[in-house]
Amino acid sequence: MNLHDEMIAVGRAALKASRELALIGARKKNSILLSMADSIEANRARIAAGNAADIEGGRAAGLPAAMLDRLLLNDKRIDSMARGLRSVAGLKDPIGQRISRWIRPNGLEIVKRRVPIGVVAVIYESRPDVTADTAALCIKASNAVILRGGKEALRSNIAIAEALAEGGKKGGLPGNAVQLIRTTDREAIRELARMEGLIDLVIPRGGEALIRAVTENATIPVIKHYKGVCHTYVDESANLDMAASVAENAKCQRPGVCNAMETLLVHEKVAKEFLPKFAARMRECGVELRGDAASGAIVPGMKEATEDDWYAEYLDLILAVRVVPSVEAAVEHINAYGSHHSDAIIAESEPARKVFTDRVDSATVYVNASTRFTDGGEFGMGGEIGISTDKLHARGPMGIEELTTYKYVILGDGQVRQ
Amino acid sequence: MNLHDEMIAVGRAALKASRELALIGARKKNSILLSMADSIEANRARIAAGNAADIEGGRAAGLPAAMLDRLLLNDKRIDSMARGLRSVAGLKDPIGQRISRWIRPNGLEIVKRRVPIGVVAVIYESRPDVTADTAALCIKASNAVILRGGKEALRSNIAIAEALAEGGKKGGLPGNAVQLIRTTDREAIRELARMEGLIDLVIPRGGEALIRAVTENATIPVIKHYKGVCHTYVDESANLDMAASVAENAKCQRPGVCNAMETLLVHEKVAKEFLPKFAARMRECGVELRGDAASGAIVPGMKEATEDDWYAEYLDLILAVRVVPSVEAAVEHINAYGSHHSDAIIAESEPARKVFTDRVDSATVYVNASTRFTDGGEFGMGGEIGISTDKLHARGPMGIEELTTYKYVILGDGQVRQ
Repeated sequence: MNLHDEMIAVGRAALKASRELALIGARKKNSILLSMADSIEANRARIAAGNAADIEGGRAAGLPAAMLDRLLLNDKRIDSMARGLRSVAGLKDPIGQRISRWIRPNGLEIVKRRVPIGVVAVIYESRPDVTADTAALCIKASNAVILRGGKEALRSNIAIAEALAEGGKKGGLPGNAVQLIRTTDREAIRELARMEGLIDLVIPRGGEALIRAVTENATIPVIKHYKGVCHTYVDESANLDMAASVAENAKCQRPGVCNAMETLLVHEKVAKEFLPKFAARMRECGVELRGDAASGAIVPGMKEATEDDWYAEYLDLILAVRVVPSVEAAVEHINAYGSHHSDAIIAESEPARKVFTDRVDSATVYVNASTRFTDGGEFGMGGEIGISTDKLHARGPMGIEELTTYKYVILGDGQVRQ
Repeated sequence: MNLHDEMIAVGRAALKASRELALIGARKKNSILLSMADSIEANRARIAAGNAADIEGGRAAGLPAAMLDRLLLNDKRIDSMARGLRSVAGLKDPIGQRISRWIRPNGLEIVKRRVPIGVVAVIYESRPDVTADTAALCIKASNAVILRGGKEALRSNIAIAEALAEGGKKGGLPGNAVQLIRTTDREAIRELARMEGLIDLVIPRGGEALIRAVTENATIPVIKHYKGVCHTYVDESANLDMAASVAENAKCQRPGVCNAMETLLVHEKVAKEFLPKFAARMRECGVELRGDAASGAIVPGMKEATEDDWYAEYLDLILAVRVVPSVEAAVEHINAYGSHHSDAIIAESEPARKVFTDRVDSATVYVNASTRFTDGGEFGMGGEIGISTDKLHARGPMGIEELTTYKYVILGDGQVRQ
């Protein structure tokens, strides 16, 4: 079978599974998830062995340390996968919910009912724990899922998928509701993104190159974010101690992720007071600063920022710094250079907050808090299938509700259109 | 300026207008819409002259009568455009609405706020009244809109767009909030569908070929339906008089539109009673029937349906007919051959209705009513920007709410992530 036919077969099997899954009630779905959690624990040795082989392969291939860390599944991370499945079982079931209902003058009763999306394909990179988390969220929302992980994590992913399948089968999960693509041919991604009528949604998670490759070829809907160029703006009205603490957290608590801050904007009226102290703090954290002329004049020795720095997603201990004359100028900078992901204002002034939250065109806009909170878990969604900077369907952190759609059910007694 | 640069300039102007539009309140938007309605009436002669030129061109080009009818703007249709603008002004404003709000254990207040999508491109065919309707709905939802109509309606569209611009300007509409693409180069469509970062959504409306051309090339989200292969299923429990009346309406009231019935499914237990009488009724309406073997055996002389007939969107006085052994078989037929648009069951049995409404995977599913009701106006949305058979963002008729998205505004007092 060639790759195209193989992918079509996967899609057909998923579609069939999705129809069966749509008819399963909340209680049964939850017991399937619990049984999958048990199976992850029961197959701990197999998963660890698969992962050890991946780690060895990764070392031989010279993968960088950060990537090897993302790849690693230790006991704690295996526990966390099982705990994740159990916690998703505990979430409220979104399916079947009546979103709204109204009656037309001709007596037609229109009910907008929450239903599964159908078949979801998730394309990701090196983290194998995504396999279990994604399967859990998709099943909870009654979607069949097609998983395509990174080739460096293939043996880990196979072990996890087999454990999930074993547990799922015991709990009564329809066959092929969770399928893992085992070919490492990159062409498979292109095939998946064009399988109209079989796959309803593709969610690519990972680096910008992967996501662009999916989007460029897709004929089916894609939800994604390319990158996270997140800002913190320190207003002239800011509590400067709070500003320093929030900005440090946004930059340093985990610099390699999409909701970390990449650019700091400071109002010119407080720049002289704020920047020297904050620069010292950044130096302690090992952060390199790249500033515009105005901030360079305040903090001597700062590297000069170029136009490219305002667009950069460093994912590293580097921070661009710019002094701005007003909250409006901060908004303009963010809308022009940012990635519409997560941006924060630190301000005591209510009018400044209003300008910022009204005008910043981003998925999540913070007042006096760290951009690091953009996360399904931190939002209380009980998990996350991804973060969207798209404006369609879902924006910001996506949980199980974002894995649903709706249909209209219209009840009549013989109405015909005039 | 080449076409690419020209389209980029249009996109940039739209983005700028959308930012300005997002800051305009409900009252001002409504007065803009009323002023546009007045301007449509004031420019009646100009619009009629543009339309007369289009009609003449269309006749010379040998356009079919049905297309000339869609192209025609008589006084009644010009009145109706103005009335449409006024009625959209009367709709509730969706923007700024607090969709939900919750507080996290760490005190963060998360507000999910309804906001405009931004820039919407609508690509359509010969009906020039779409120009005014679409502009009205987009402005009400605070979106800038880029309109690309069919080339046969260009002079009508220019006259309408100029009238809208004149009225809009008087009311305070930001410049370029409504832009009409005047080039008839089809390449413009391809350009628009790839303008990531400038256009947020493309809605193609028209024939399947147009919609496929847009989808195939798009890198930005598209909402659409390719076609409407709608079914009416007459259950064994049906009130057969109601079935005949609803099915006739679904087929004959306006056969050329997407929510008209294309295939009739009849339960084998009532086929002998229902089909002969219904076939006679269809003959009176001038409808050609194409049946499977079982229905051919009941109604002699019926043309034999081929596999292609089950997939066909006739948009004409033709009806495919099939006898099925159960409601489950009807569902299976609909999910396999249908277009997930609008499907109806005629049944008195509650279990049969439940099987049908639960399992038919379509945007709108009817019990005892005509599929012709799938329409924003009939749903009480006050208008319609299109109908979606996609599952993402919007499904079924799309009104102004479907032209919005949301953003999260998170209010803290210095929270940092642990």
